[in-house]
Order: sequence, then structure tokens, then C-alpha cells
Amino acid sequence: MKEQRKRRVPRRIREQQIIDVAVTVFSKRGYHAASVDEIADLAGISKPMVYLYLDSKEGLFVACLRREAERLVTAFQAAARGQQGPDARLYAGLGAFFGFVSEHRDSWVVLHRQASELSETIAGEVALARRAVMEQVAGLISDGIAESGSTADLREEDADFVAHALVGAADYVTDWMERHPDQAPDTVTLRLMNMLWVGMRNVLNGEAWLPPVAPDPPQ
Amino acid sequence: MKEQRKRRVPRRIREQQIIDVAVTVFSKRGYHAASVDEIADLAGISKPMVYLYLDSKEGLFVACLRREAERLVTAFQAAARGQQGPDARLYAGLGAFFGFVSEHRDSWVVLHRQASELSETIAGEVALARRAVMEQVAGLISDGIAESGSTADLREEDADFVAHALVGAADYVTDWMERHPDQAPDTVTLRLMNMLWVGMRNVLNGEAWLPPVAPDPPQ
Repeated sequence: MKEQRKRRVPRRIREQQIIDVAVTVFSKRGYHAASVDEIADLAGISKPMVYLYLDSKEGLFVACLRREAERLVTAFQAAARGQQGPDARLYAGLGAFFGFVSEHRDSWVVLHRQASELSETIAGEVALARRAVMEQVAGLISDGIAESGSTADLREEDADFVAHALVGAADYVTDWMERHPDQAPDTVTLRLMNMLWVGMRNVLNGEAWLPPVAPDPPQ
Repeated sequence: MKEQRKRRVPRRIREQQIIDVAVTVFSKRGYHAASVDEIADLAGISKPMVYLYLDSKEGLFVACLRREAERLVTAFQAAARGQQGPDARLYAGLGAFFGFVSEHRDSWVVLHRQASELSETIAGEVALARRAVMEQVAGLISDGIAESGSTADLREEDADFVAHALVGAADYVTDWMERHPDQAPDTVTLRLMNMLWVGMRNVLNGEAWLPPVAPDPPQ
């Protein structure tokens, strides 16, 4: 035979190539409409091979979710690490988040928008990914509380609460970003820091907001 | 015939009864697994009647979404209206939101978690509902900016940005609430106000957070 045998690509690399394509296809078509045929075709690999490596359409989706969540968490950690002070770490982390989202639009769609009405396996994976992000942020808040020598009585539970509010704010701001493509991720990060950090700084300093006193209800 | 004829229930009321049941069923089973048979059965009405009134399973889901979104927006408006000052309005609005979510758990699930991987019609409805909530909050922020006679240069676009961050924070905090059932909606509202408002107050007063100056990159 004259035909040269195709060079054997290691499984690990093949899998990453399949996942690259799958993220794009799931993001574009949605989970239900996405077809493994199209993914195999675009990845230049046979459909049985896709099943051999990633088991099923669901397995493929879970692999996409895991890899993209890991990338996001890694980007966040890498940016925050080595910064001095809780505000600089949060700023760097948020910047990495908005940078990731604007560069990897497809990943964000896979991670975020597609998951609620799918299988329990997938819902479980999404919950895990979300928890991983939340733990990163809560850890950062905890450290901030510890470092600040805050006069306010703040605990682990507070860090988790603040992490939820922060991540939720950042998440919804990505929708705003989508409708303001002229705003660079850096600008968005700084806007959000100004909204969030100024508040947290003051809360750490013991400043409190109290609700207005309600008039007595009529007897 | 001896049998007494069933009293005729006006269509408007019947529809509301069907929607009540449908919200519960969609919330419990998810959109795909929910069956119109079960909804008809629980509502004590025939299946053809459900189709006559609400057209299809999709029409039923859209009716649920619309009604629950309207309820949420109405609760928010009613609470905020008549309060003095932007902070009191936001506090009242957030309180109504967390109150609604904790009282109407099913509605929240329908409004919120089920919508991403469904039909375009449903996705469009969800986007509309979300936009309605966002506009309420952005309006409240705009008024706050106008009333404060703020020294900061803030515009409509800023109000929309802040609204996204606020609504996102409130949304994710509902997940936190679910894992802290001992925390009353009032407490949660006050915690979030303290995190958010103290920051906004200072930003309105012209206080700014600036990122740390980065060292020059090596030449």
C-alpha cells in the first residue's frame, strides 16, 4: 500500500479537539438540537470514535462543562494570586472573569445558559461547577475579612453570602456587556469594582445601613 | 335528569386555576417531563378544555411565565412606591422580591430555572420578563441618581449597569437563601442592602475605587 497511515494522535489531544468543536456546536445549536454527527464531522473524526472517547452526547456535554469551568476557575485563581490586598485580588479576579467571558463567548454559553432543563447528570455537573467558582470567590472574601482586621463581626457564612451576591452581579453584568460591545472587559471590571468594593470597604470598617424606621401601623 | 349541572365557572377564573396548577407541575417535573394530562387532572378540567383555553403545552408555560413575572413586578412596584428616598425604595423593593421568592418558590422555579433550553418562543418570553424586572430596578436607580443631586457623572447607561449587578446579586442570593432556611427574607434583604447600598451611597458622593498601579512591564 502506498497510502501513508494517518499519524496517530494521542487520545488526550484528540479528546481536547473534540471538546473544542463540541463547545462551539452546543453553544450554537443548544443541547437538544446539537448532533454528534456534526461534532464528529467538524472534528474530522468518526462518530464511533467520539462515542468511544466520550461515551455519549451527555458525556460529551459534561466533558465540555468540566473543561470550561476548570479554565474559568484557573484564570480567576491565576489572576488573583500574587496580588496584594483583597481589593486588588478581587479586581484581578473579576478582570480575568470578564476577559474570559468576552474572549470565550462559546464557553460561557455552554457553562451558563444551557443547563437547567437537561438531565440530572448535567444539572449536577453545573451545580458542581458553580460551587467551584463560588468557593474561589468566598475564599477570597474570607481572606479579605481576615486581613482587614475588620471591626465588623463577619464570619464564613458572610463570606459565602457576599460571594453569591458578587458572582450573581458579575454574571448578570455579562448580559449588559453583550449589549454594550464598545465597553472593554477592563472598563466593566472597574465599574463593578466601584459599585461593589466601595461598599464592602465601608462594611468592613463597620459602617452599616439601617432601614428607615417604619411608622407604627394604625391600631 | 336529576343530576345538577356543574356551575359554570367564568373563563378568566378557570384559566387562573389551570395556571395555578401548571406552575406547580412545571416547577416539580420540569418542562419536558410535565404532562398536560396531569395538569388537567389536578385542575379538575378536561384536557381538551385546557387546550381550548391555553392552546398548547407551550402556551400554558408562557401563560405561567407571564403571570408570575407580572406578580413579581407588581409586588416590587407596590413595595417601592410611596417610600421616601432611593435607599428606602430599594430596600422595600428587595424585601418584596425576597418575600415573593420565599413564599412562591414554585413561581420562582418557573420564572427562572427552566427556560434556557426550551423553544424560542419561551426564551423570548423569559427575556421579556427579565427586561421588565430590569427596567423597574433601573428606573429606581435613575430616580436615585436624579434625587441625590449626585456629584458623580452618572447616566442612564450607568443605571442600567447597576440594575444588572443588583438583580444578579439578588438572584444568586436566592440560592444562598435556599441553603439557609433559618434566614428570614427580611434579614437577607438587610444583608444585601448593607453590601450594596453603602457602596452606592459612596459612589453617589463621588467616592471612587482605583486599581492599584501596575509596575511597568519589562522593556
